Amino acid sequence: MAASLLLGTTGFAQTPFINTLMPQPVALQPATGDLAITPQLKITLKGANDPLLRQAAQRMVTKLEQHTALPLTTALVDDSHASIQIDVVDHSQQRPMDGVDESYTLNIQNGTATLHAQTDFGAMHGMETLLQLIQGEGSSYVIPAVHIEDSPRFPWRGLLLDPGRHFLPIDNVLRTLDAMAAVKMNVLHWHLTEDQGFRIESKRFPKLHELGSGGQYYTQDQVRAIVRYATDRGIRVVPEFDIPGHSSTWMIGYPELASAPGPYRVEEDNRIYDAAMDPTRESTYRFLDSFLEEMTSLFPDEYIHIGGDESNGKHWRSNPEIERFMQQHNMKSTNELQTYFNSRVQKLLTRHHRRMVGWDEILQPDLSSEVVVQNWHGIEFLIDGARRGHKGILSKPFYLDHHYSAEEMYAVDPVPSGNGLTPAQKKLILGGEACMWGEQVDFRTVDSRIWPRTAAVAERLWSPASVHDTQDMYRRLAVISLRLDDLGVTHLSNPTRGMRQISGGDTDALQIFASVVQPVDFHERYKEQHTSATTPMTNIIDFTVFDPLSRNHFRELVAAYLQSSAREDIARHTKDRAELENTFHHWLSAAQQLSMQSQANPKLANIAQRRLQWMQLASLGLQAMALIEAKQPADPAWFNAQQSLLKASADPTELVDFVALGPLNELLKATSQPATGL
Amino acid sequence: MAASLLLGTTGFAQTPFINTLMPQPVALQPATGDLAITPQLKITLKGANDPLLRQAAQRMVTKLEQHTALPLTTALVDDSHASIQIDVVDHSQQRPMDGVDESYTLNIQNGTATLHAQTDFGAMHGMETLLQLIQGEGSSYVIPAVHIEDSPRFPWRGLLLDPGRHFLPIDNVLRTLDAMAAVKMNVLHWHLTEDQGFRIESKRFPKLHELGSGGQYYTQDQVRAIVRYATDRGIRVVPEFDIPGHSSTWMIGYPELASAPGPYRVEEDNRIYDAAMDPTRESTYRFLDSFLEEMTSLFPDEYIHIGGDESNGKHWRSNPEIERFMQQHNMKSTNELQTYFNSRVQKLLTRHHRRMVGWDEILQPDLSSEVVVQNWHGIEFLIDGARRGHKGILSKPFYLDHHYSAEEMYAVDPVPSGNGLTPAQKKLILGGEACMWGEQVDFRTVDSRIWPRTAAVAERLWSPASVHDTQDMYRRLAVISLRLDDLGVTHLSNPTRGMRQISGGDTDALQIFASVVQPVDFHERYKEQHTSATTPMTNIIDFTVFDPLSRNHFRELVAAYLQSSAREDIARHTKDRAELENTFHHWLSAAQQLSMQSQANPKLANIAQRRLQWMQLASLGLQAMALIEAKQPADPAWFNAQQSLLKASADPTELVDFVALGPLNELLKATSQPATGL
Repeated sequence: MAASLLLGTTGFAQTPFINTLMPQPVALQPATGDLAITPQLKITLKGANDPLLRQAAQRMVTKLEQHTALPLTTALVDDSHASIQIDVVDHSQQRPMDGVDESYTLNIQNGTATLHAQTDFGAMHGMETLLQLIQGEGSSYVIPAVHIEDSPRFPWRGLLLDPGRHFLPIDNVLRTLDAMAAVKMNVLHWHLTEDQGFRIESKRFPKLHELGSGGQYYTQDQVRAIVRYATDRGIRVVPEFDIPGHSSTWMIGYPELASAPGPYRVEEDNRIYDAAMDPTRESTYRFLDSFLEEMTSLFPDEYIHIGGDESNGKHWRSNPEIERFMQQHNMKSTNELQTYFNSRVQKLLTRHHRRMVGWDEILQPDLSSEVVVQNWHGIEFLIDGARRGHKGILSKPFYLDHHYSAEEMYAVDPVPSGNGLTPAQKKLILGGEACMWGEQVDFRTVDSRIWPRTAAVAERLWSPASVHDTQDMYRRLAVISLRLDDLGVTHLSNPTRGMRQISGGDTDALQIFASVVQPVDFHERYKEQHTSATTPMTNIIDFTVFDPLSRNHFRELVAAYLQSSAREDIARHTKDRAELENTFHHWLSAAQQLSMQSQANPKLANIAQRRLQWMQLASLGLQAMALIEAKQPADPAWFNAQQSLLKASADPTELVDFVALGPLNELLKATSQPATGL
Repeated sequence: MAASLLLGTTGFAQTPFINTLMPQPVALQPATGDLAITPQLKITLKGANDPLLRQAAQRMVTKLEQHTALPLTTALVDDSHASIQIDVVDHSQQRPMDGVDESYTLNIQNGTATLHAQTDFGAMHGMETLLQLIQGEGSSYVIPAVHIEDSPRFPWRGLLLDPGRHFLPIDNVLRTLDAMAAVKMNVLHWHLTEDQGFRIESKRFPKLHELGSGGQYYTQDQVRAIVRYATDRGIRVVPEFDIPGHSSTWMIGYPELASAPGPYRVEEDNRIYDAAMDPTRESTYRFLDSFLEEMTSLFPDEYIHIGGDESNGKHWRSNPEIERFMQQHNMKSTNELQTYFNSRVQKLLTRHHRRMVGWDEILQPDLSSEVVVQNWHGIEFLIDGARRGHKGILSKPFYLDHHYSAEEMYAVDPVPSGNGLTPAQKKLILGGEACMWGEQVDFRTVDSRIWPRTAAVAERLWSPASVHDTQDMYRRLAVISLRLDDLGVTHLSNPTRGMRQISGGDTDALQIFASVVQPVDFHERYKEQHTSATTPMTNIIDFTVFDPLSRNHFRELVAAYLQSSAREDIARHTKDRAELENTFHHWLSAAQQLSMQSQANPKLANIAQRRLQWMQLASLGLQAMALIEAKQPADPAWFNAQQSLLKASADPTELVDFVALGPLNELLKATSQPATGL
């Protein structure tokens, strides 16, 4: 006590603050006087408060309780001396929308926390930060004393879900919303209609979902529940009804919408179909007018996404009446016809008080500047659009069905330096969206493709551009991954279950294998497996993940080993060497165990070549280390053989790619160079 | 080929048959000619078939596909040459009911499978057997050639779920039904009303669920969906509306039902409340008449359970009008009054074409022999009831909130030998029910309390009494546990997730700890923690399980070690010794790691005493082994200290019990006996 008085502290316990926040806040300073979490904790909403805020606070209490196992059911009370005070200025905004203030300040000192925000939605972000601050300290939980000022860099921080290709049950959507809220994302882009499925109930046009979904669609009650759930968490729901292409399932029940006679069906293959709405008939617009009106009763958000991508114009070109229409209207290309279609649809949306979003393809010369363009053709089109006055959203670098690593996505800035935009033009770039296209995921695997990588995207879109330390990002990504697991996201539990199933219960060896591989990229899988809506997704490729956290760990380990070797830092090197050797020995014994397990196990038998290569790679590592330690030159024949091995191991086979080849190559290069043979 | 001709086989591949079936069938003989599962597999329903059977076959295809990752979407066809032929004689029964024929025969030979059953429900059981037969063989899957004749020993093979105490979301109920079907259970006993919650929507009396559930109840649409889902899987749904006691939540909205003035509320504590319906007022029966009529529209099953347990009569004794009624009717005890109440309710049920089930307490002298008595006071009452002509169901030995091991439950026979019943009386014992009372489980933990133990109960109720090999049961229990995991049951994934959360990601040490402990028993937990509806269930006790499979494994290992030691079987002993020593070393290093992890981890800090004892127990094991190996007498002081350690370790503390003490005591006893000190 005396010491703390001398130091000017208050006598409150002080815990070293470990920053595991994701996304990083704009500003954070340590303060004095941690907040202890005890069963006596009280939380108060100051002044006027509303159900939206109260429910959010109640959810925070439930999570606190779950995390600490302390009974806090009655923590939320009206008590001006409560140790957590939440103070929101303005409750008038009851759903997240353009221009909403998402900022908050969080002040933990002298054993109390004060969360201050302009809106309920800012307060929700602050509550998520509060939850992320909790630390264990001996047998107690504390929230360390810090002062945080925070607000998002971009207003549009989205995630696209695509139940069109593989239907995602309600629970799946709900837990995704929980996860989004945890990393402060605020837009669910819901791709509801596709050639492979029409996933939303229409009461006006029931043949859409009845004939277009194989029975797998969201009822209107369910849609309302999901929108409510999202709104409660500060997340907007922007539905996408993809037109005029990607529309086979509209035409099964309503062939009069089509440009070609059909017949149409729910498609299974993952390719681009020619089906396209007929943009020349007034009846098409009457249908869309009525349909969109119905949808606005379900989706309160100001935006509706009309897709507009990959409409190849073939059915338009092959329809004489459409050809005639184009001639009459002096249209030289199907692009011009699509622009006409878009402008008609935009007028309908305006009538229903909605603004239009569409993919790159809609960005034609006459496009209204009211329309938001979602970029997937390359960031140069986004910049160009902004220059021409269009609002835009960046997507392509965040495509989650591709093998982009967390660090690759993290390195992308939607407003890159050297863009040449004026400050006003920069503001037109609203943010970005991670896109979870559904061709190669199902309800089991989808979480493990989204998370934790998307948390890196969330940080890119929330935090200042100056936050870009990759290693610090990976450190915090491991923590957020565990937090999302606690929310019920299945990105850890489903792969673990899958590996239990494949291995017959003892997953040790398979887990180690999964630490050195990732699924092949989207196109490679399509090439090898011709994935369709009926491809079973219970194989090893489905239970491994893109950019496993072990990838970065191994790379860092090899780098540390080579560095401590070069620096002749003996103590450090002894430790690095032991860990790296240990890793390679684990690989060898795991590969041997997999070989035994594979004898009565077809799914393991299917990775025989990778297993063999893996053993060779482990040997490469151990032999390279032996040479490095002995400072002996590598035998040229051996060196060349290892280079061939690395090259062969990089070839696609058996649906998984090694993620450890780069560091292994570094290790190989670090062996004393062999005689060149000259 | 020549060899197979000589042996009289057909040239079909032949896999050694590994029997992992659970429950065991009545008769099984190996045959010749495995059925290979390939993408060309075809399955046909012979002759007339109905949607019930077709859906069941489609579910089997989906599971086959999931298990093998072979594309089988189009396997179900009309093809008389299909390699799986399903032949059902009589489709007239469209829901499972008393007397339904559940038998089937399954014949796999010459590369084809024939499943024959009298009813759709028998065929469903056969399909589950077929799925359990699948084996991997190199890079292929096969169904080994066998001939199976099978039918259940008891017609009532139930599981009680209690959402009254902790609400269980729909998904939870659905996956439980999937699991029940997998082990051929056929009755879901759904305990829907309790002092702690009224969990079903009533349109006639909406204040029941509106005021009695805290918003957590099943809507009628959801109930219909669940009953449909169960029926589709051959499972009856018997709802329980517990009256006249356990009824606080009825009286919140309808105090006129009560015997005392109230007020009433949704209770949180887990104790017996005095609330009781007033059995003397006609209005009570009019209410129940209308309510039960409404419920019969949701539950087609011929049985309705009216509870009747733990009605303590206090409110009846304290109500002068009820006292007067008892005097007028010459009733000497509240038991007699409850018998009167039961007979009135039974008349209502009869009017609505339903038969009554109730707990032991309803078995009073005048009880109609139509009524089925569910036994929880001890099997002697069940036997006695049968002797007096009452149908009965055994429950108490299968209470899943208690720490009964799988083998303890497996050893219980509902019709034990030496029962003195006539064959007709024996038939009155319909079967049994595993009861998952809800006080100390929530939606996270409930699966891990039910499974896999309940599969042992399912086998006891299905298979012949002669099937009782405990070690064979445990061998197959490990396999069925993994199969249930594949169905989405969370008994493995949820504890694993919980341990990830508690350990901060690296679960190795905690998993080893979980292999040597189980939760304390129901009453002990209640005593230590005073569990209520608001007790958080995210602690170590919640992520450990009763009778972990490791318990039996460790016991067998110690027994094998001692046996090979006594027999001086050196080769065997060397192996056993290494494995056992290894186990103790793992305990030690895991305990040390837990100690490190616990420094910033309150939940781990909470098991400090158990962790210390565990290290001492590991030392006990290693030291006892050293003495046994050296054939040295134990030092008496050391021996006594170890006995004290075992005794202290058996005391309840920190909410978990060791499951390894018995074998450790065997090990200690096997050290050469110390000098007695005489």
